Amino acid sequence: MQLGIVGLGRMGGNIARRLMRAGHHTVVHDRNREAVTALHKEGASGAHDLGALIQKLEAPRAVWVMLPAGEATEQTIAQLAELLEPGDAIIDGGNTFYKDDMRRASELATRGLHYLDVGTSGGVWGLERGYCMMIGGEKDVFERLEPLFKALAPGVGDIPRTQGRSGEPARAEHGYIHAGPAGSGHYVKMVHNGIEYGLMQAYAEGFDLLRSKGGPELPEAQRFDLDVAEIAEVWRRGSVVTSWLLDLTADALVADPALADFSGSVSDSGEGRWTIDAAVEQAVPVPVLSSALFARFRSRQQQGTFGDKVLSAMRLGFGGHVEKKRE
Amino acid sequence: MQLGIVGLGRMGGNIARRLMRAGHHTVVHDRNREAVTALHKEGASGAHDLGALIQKLEAPRAVWVMLPAGEATEQTIAQLAELLEPGDAIIDGGNTFYKDDMRRASELATRGLHYLDVGTSGGVWGLERGYCMMIGGEKDVFERLEPLFKALAPGVGDIPRTQGRSGEPARAEHGYIHAGPAGSGHYVKMVHNGIEYGLMQAYAEGFDLLRSKGGPELPEAQRFDLDVAEIAEVWRRGSVVTSWLLDLTADALVADPALADFSGSVSDSGEGRWTIDAAVEQAVPVPVLSSALFARFRSRQQQGTFGDKVLSAMRLGFGGHVEKKRE
Amino acid sequence: MQLGIVGLGRMGGNIARRLMRAGHHTVVHDRNREAVTALHKEGASGAHDLGALIQKLEAPRAVWVMLPAGEATEQTIAQLAELLEPGDAIIDGGNTFYKDDMRRASELATRGLHYLDVGTSGGVWGLERGYCMMIGGEKDVFERLEPLFKALAPGVGDIPRTQGRSGEPARAEHGYIHAGPAGSGHYVKMVHNGIEYGLMQAYAEGFDLLRSKGGPELPEAQRFDLDVAEIAEVWRRGSVVTSWLLDLTADALVADPALADFSGSVSDSGEGRWTIDAAVEQAVPVPVLSSALFARFRSRQQQGTFGDKVLSAMRLGFGGHVEKKRE
Amino acid sequence: MQLGIVGLGRMGGNIARRLMRAGHHTVVHDRNREAVTALHKEGASGAHDLGALIQKLEAPRAVWVMLPAGEATEQTIAQLAELLEPGDAIIDGGNTFYKDDMRRASELATRGLHYLDVGTSGGVWGLERGYCMMIGGEKDVFERLEPLFKALAPGVGDIPRTQGRSGEPARAEHGYIHAGPAGSGHYVKMVHNGIEYGLMQAYAEGFDLLRSKGGPELPEAQRFDLDVAEIAEVWRRGSVVTSWLLDLTADALVADPALADFSGSVSDSGEGRWTIDAAVEQAVPVPVLSSALFARFRSRQQQGTFGDKVLSAMRLGFGGHVEKKRE
Repeated sequence: MQLGIVGLGRMGGNIARRLMRAGHHTVVHDRNREAVTALHKEGASGAHDLGALIQKLEAPRAVWVMLPAGEATEQTIAQLAELLEPGDAIIDGGNTFYKDDMRRASELATRGLHYLDVGTSGGVWGLERGYCMMIGGEKDVFERLEPLFKALAPGVGDIPRTQGRSGEPARAEHGYIHAGPAGSGHYVKMVHNGIEYGLMQAYAEGFDLLRSKGGPELPEAQRFDLDVAEIAEVWRRGSVVTSWLLDLTADALVADPALADFSGSVSDSGEGRWTIDAAVEQAVPVPVLSSALFARFRSRQQQGTFGDKVLSAMRLGFGGHVEKKRE
Repeated sequence: MQLGIVGLGRMGGNIARRLMRAGHHTVVHDRNREAVTALHKEGASGAHDLGALIQKLEAPRAVWVMLPAGEATEQTIAQLAELLEPGDAIIDGGNTFYKDDMRRASELATRGLHYLDVGTSGGVWGLERGYCMMIGGEKDVFERLEPLFKALAPGVGDIPRTQGRSGEPARAEHGYIHAGPAGSGHYVKMVHNGIEYGLMQAYAEGFDLLRSKGGPELPEAQRFDLDVAEIAEVWRRGSVVTSWLLDLTADALVADPALADFSGSVSDSGEGRWTIDAAVEQAVPVPVLSSALFARFRSRQQQGTFGDKVLSAMRLGFGGHVEKKRE
Repeated sequence: MQLGIVGLGRMGGNIARRLMRAGHHTVVHDRNREAVTALHKEGASGAHDLGALIQKLEAPRAVWVMLPAGEATEQTIAQLAELLEPGDAIIDGGNTFYKDDMRRASELATRGLHYLDVGTSGGVWGLERGYCMMIGGEKDVFERLEPLFKALAPGVGDIPRTQGRSGEPARAEHGYIHAGPAGSGHYVKMVHNGIEYGLMQAYAEGFDLLRSKGGPELPEAQRFDLDVAEIAEVWRRGSVVTSWLLDLTADALVADPALADFSGSVSDSGEGRWTIDAAVEQAVPVPVLSSALFARFRSRQQQGTFGDKVLSAMRLGFGGHVEKKRE
Repeated sequence: MQLGIVGLGRMGGNIARRLMRAGHHTVVHDRNREAVTALHKEGASGAHDLGALIQKLEAPRAVWVMLPAGEATEQTIAQLAELLEPGDAIIDGGNTFYKDDMRRASELATRGLHYLDVGTSGGVWGLERGYCMMIGGEKDVFERLEPLFKALAPGVGDIPRTQGRSGEPARAEHGYIHAGPAGSGHYVKMVHNGIEYGLMQAYAEGFDLLRSKGGPELPEAQRFDLDVAEIAEVWRRGSVVTSWLLDLTADALVADPALADFSGSVSDSGEGRWTIDAAVEQAVPVPVLSSALFARFRSRQQQGTFGDKVLSAMRLGFGGHVEKKRE
């Protein structure tokens, strides 16, 4: 099949590559001309602007937008909407807020345009491992473009089959699903990332415990000087906590068990935040997912928070406890 | 009545003073001779050691130990146990772990000695406001010494009476209770402090929100530059969040709305920790009380935690996100 | 002064009453004619619709809308906007989301209308205790209407003055403040309620611990049978956790220490939720405020959550642990 | 090698089997004679009591105790200590609290006996997948018995090697480690289980969100009717949240996406609790691990908690909100 791709960053470029490897044809565009040239050399058709990209595609067209969520994606889709024809489809593969998808899909529908939102997991590993995709939008449009998704997905691979499944592998077993109407793809991806935050923080707290068990908070007789790299490694085999995130942790701890190169200041992205907002909206308690997000917020305030100072001020007030700054 | 007091720090000294103001007689001891001399001038009998202190008391004696929980208290009680006679009573007014009270009470009982554990709230304000006391131990011993507790307690005062109470004010309305058997006084005080941590953290988070609403995390159009001192003040009148802790916060924010003198590193003491251990033992979910304790733990790690570095290492692993230290 | 009041529920009716007691004139309207008649008998002018209400007010008019946040308030303000004249002011005293205030204020400004958002705390006690008010909007409009706010506020009263304050009492000491531009009044009220949730949950967890200490989770030798009503009472005097919320708890526990009349299913309102959303937006960790909200969400799912069933399913999967429903 | 095994439950029986498959000789005992007979048929020597078991082993002996942590294990070890000779070793493979290991190891050392604590993960899958083992105790004793651990461990298998590792596979890559002195094996296993709780709860909250997105808390236009079984499946391929726990979840959701057979009441075991106690002792914030434990506590209180009733009582007090039980 043919696919237009706008945005050739780490994700978009590799999506083009993986599609081409599977025999699909891509027409690519990026503001950065060098990125276009590079992919052109690998077999893609290059387009110097969105108009040219659309010219090179046959109707009904499909254009995959792989840009940072927010303004960049919003504007590009608005421009594409002006240029495309009824029956064409826009795919947003970025990390868009799912309510923006819902809004866009209805706006585009008034022009006869289709819209798929594709939550895409796989990061820098996607080119080799394939991308796990959660797709929202009209089912027939999804089915029309399914060969592309199938090519991008990891495929059945050699993962042991889930108990109770039989017959032809389902889409999910290939690594992609049609989640539901517009927005549902990114909604599922959002929850995926919310879980990801929680899993990561669970490991983080565990390793914090292991490391601090050798540290000065404890009397010497109660300390254990534990080898966190060996522990991460041993848990990779036969334990209940085996996971890909643990594999990555093991990689990092072999390189430096103290992780001294890292500042400890941890970023967060939209999905982790939206997950909490969704939980509040749905009245679902998510103490773990929120704690994971808050730990990241806290990690970035390395100078002491105003809230903590309020605590000290109260303690001084009722108990005469002094926690003032040393001069 | 007559009371021996061992430990003339901020709390012990004022307890002696408040008792003397009420006409009771105190015999006091402290390792620091100046503290003894000072109280002697205020009317107390001074004792240069525990033996002398006991000599100056008439049987059945009562000795109030007001020392830091742990070794200091433990050793002093052991020494007193050697010196006292059957029928005498030891009162531990410190912040002892309630299971230590339970153990001690049975050990002392084998010698015919009595033991009361008194959870004492009031801090530096107790001399004037009186001490709120939660008392564990044998009921008849408690009743024998009740005049002392009544003198130390705040008394009925001008606080509006609780709806549904009538007749003679109960002990609780005077500001002290017999909570139950040995250990129960400190248990109740422990939970009191657990709640205190939670209340404090609730205010801390709220004020953090108010202050950061004017800060750089938000686009300018969404900022409010709020006056936290005025807000603390207005909440003192007619709002649902009025409390003594809020009063203290208002005091501090008038002095400096930025609380710039405080480092933001906040200590914790045994009770907050034991409360969590008790919750775990009793299988009671305490997300607020534990979050409050953890916020203090976190406040003291101003260099980034190992756990946070683990998060960054994973993010680098799966997404190529760079959160390494700047050189 | 003169004030129009729309909405004569528990809050609106008492606001009218308190203003009239202070000598102000009110023109009142409610869909419920009986509510209008009742207040008319107490001295208010009644209006059978919004048009009549506006007719009875002299320009520049001020109309206080005291309706449930959301549709009811939104529609009433839209209708008032059609009827009022430039220079008139609308006051929203309900629990409106502060971003709705910001939007409304700019919409109304295009018509020359003013808008104040008044976060109002005091509940059913406001008539007697006065209302604590946090007010957003143009400062000169606020100042024009200040006599009304002063009359509604609790006033300086006999609360001990905050340390470091001197001279004429500030507005905050009377119980109302001008917080800042439109939306800031409700923003501060929102955070107030967020804190309120946290404080309440801190007490709830503490009392849960006290009560369960006598319960079957523990071996008998470790139980204390504690009197929660006496404990709530004693903490009201001289302890660090004294507060109005504790007073209310003491009231309830005198009536029934088991609180057996309550189902344990606890509602939440907008402010608690918006506080978490604001924290997420501002990147402020609020583990206590969010835990308090989540506890209420959880309290309403008395049949077991899907999430908990997922846990059981995993436990069965890896450990053969059986937590299936009994037939 | 030769190994005595006491306790032939799910774990102990399979440990014997896996050792025999690797050519080791086992002498087994259990209170249940049938369990002994069954294993005897599979090649083990049976022993009708501990004395007989010890008789059948050559010095220096090693006896693996695989019983429920607590009394059963404690008493068996005490009896073995009476029967064994200096130089012999006791291995505790259960889920013992690590401070009990530390105590036992020093007690046994006074008799010249050795003690290894083996945290064993693998559950019902261990026979086939092998057991992941974290081992504490004297290093030379560990090394003497290493062939047994190697046989029980999963081995290197076909798991992709951790980046940065080279040369002969380390012990950890075989699936067992010597963690450090007595107690450290169970300490590491305890943290493992703490992490496990956190991971599980992260998935549970995510699936709760997915499921409730189709539910009545939301207005219909905002609902998605998501297929949780398909989502679990798709995440198994190429996503960041792949793990063994996810595999198990996928199994369960295929069987019944509603998990209707489960009550939602979830048990917890010692390790999850001890992990929180350890965090409190080490002053490490563990909001995720504690939230996971508290969620289980909460799941078992299906009738509403006393704390929740306290909330309702306060709400009635300050706002007139009625949450009383319906008759």
